[in-house]
Amino acid sequence: MRNIRLTVEYDGTAYRGWQRQPSGPSIQGTLEEAVAKMTGEPVTVVGAGRTDAGVHALNQVANFKTRSAIPAANFLKGLNSLLPRDMAVKVLGDADPAFHARFDARRKVYRYRILNGPVRPALLRNFAWHVRFPLDPARMEEGVSHFLGTLDFTSFCAARCDTRGRVRTVTRAFLDFRGEGEILFTVEADGFLRHMVRNMVGLLVEIGKGKARHDDIPAILAAKDRRRAAMTAPPQGLFLMEVSYE
Amino acid sequence: MRNIRLTVEYDGTAYRGWQRQPSGPSIQGTLEEAVAKMTGEPVTVVGAGRTDAGVHALNQVANFKTRSAIPAANFLKGLNSLLPRDMAVKVLGDADPAFHARFDARRKVYRYRILNGPVRPALLRNFAWHVRFPLDPARMEEGVSHFLGTLDFTSFCAARCDTRGRVRTVTRAFLDFRGEGEILFTVEADGFLRHMVRNMVGLLVEIGKGKARHDDIPAILAAKDRRRAAMTAPPQGLFLMEVSYE
Repeated sequence: MRNIRLTVEYDGTAYRGWQRQPSGPSIQGTLEEAVAKMTGEPVTVVGAGRTDAGVHALNQVANFKTRSAIPAANFLKGLNSLLPRDMAVKVLGDADPAFHARFDARRKVYRYRILNGPVRPALLRNFAWHVRFPLDPARMEEGVSHFLGTLDFTSFCAARCDTRGRVRTVTRAFLDFRGEGEILFTVEADGFLRHMVRNMVGLLVEIGKGKARHDDIPAILAAKDRRRAAMTAPPQGLFLMEVSYE
Repeated sequence: MRNIRLTVEYDGTAYRGWQRQPSGPSIQGTLEEAVAKMTGEPVTVVGAGRTDAGVHALNQVANFKTRSAIPAANFLKGLNSLLPRDMAVKVLGDADPAFHARFDARRKVYRYRILNGPVRPALLRNFAWHVRFPLDPARMEEGVSHFLGTLDFTSFCAARCDTRGRVRTVTRAFLDFRGEGEILFTVEADGFLRHMVRNMVGLLVEIGKGKARHDDIPAILAAKDRRRAAMTAPPQGLFLMEVSYE
């Protein structure tokens, strides 16, 4: 069996998220259908990060096993001609037979875009969270460093978070304040719990509004209680940027 | 009569362009309907630039006359609640009774985004021109300066260009080569002929491919013949960035 590794970009707006499900189109399901059409075999595509409905990816990494002899370059072209316009395979090649896109991932980078201003955006409506209330950059900046290190992120995990270990190591976390109210939050970790980035952003926005304080974060983390953090930021501002392997 | 001036952002993907027309939704028509719903009077909204189908705007400027007494802040909020998500009014206020968004415009800035790379983009599919063939930045850079100055742009005007004067003064024209194959072409002029920016970009891409030479541009301009230039770049890469007045 060949083990094919691929890098995928997608606009998550029209999808129920990465994971295949009966209720509507998923990124995984759409990829699996395209691969199956090319190989004539049913297939399971494993993704590094199971992004939620409306979340985007610039470089999601995935893999699948196949008996097909289609050369990698033709696979890439064929998939891109079969996939809808809001999905594209950027890189595709043969990987080590043991490679597993999810279990072997060592680090992931996510980025979240906030647009802070009085008027809702038109061009970026599906690619940012519009926050009307003025945010204080200095306050937010002070909050970010509290997320760095090896920490228990239970308080930042979705209410129905079913992961056993909730300790993750955040290796980078920073904000970019661009012009016209654009704020980018970038975070790198060895793994992410469900809604973890969106819950971090929800709290950073509360801090930016002055409704929470940056030095509340250690106590919120220590409480290991989702109800202690803030609202979950909406999905459309979130992008899976990068997945690294050994 | 009040004369209301407004700045509008829109994603042109779903529209037949700025100008009202029977064949489908237009930016102008959609704005006019929203204004009419608020004021109860029929209205004509005049736009600074008549963008084509699929072309976007970050800051289109427009104006309309009304007898309505609705305060400006309420007008802005009301319009944004009536307009579809792919259009937003960013600024709105009372203007001098003589202000005319089109005739009074002194300078406009357009920007065009090219994505140069082997694979079609998914996230930016409606916001860039994907060019597969590798482009040479140095060659393109040499081409740009030939567009500067007061020149007759007949060779860069749409085949059915019905404007009488075809002389325009280009005050800025430059390229930004960003990472990952992103190329931005920004151009400022006192006015633009139909398809002028898209025809400039079409020729710059031919130059980047090595299929035309930068020093062909003066002769192409001198010929005053649309057939001498290159193909028209597609609409989805083009953004109206700014309109200035005295």
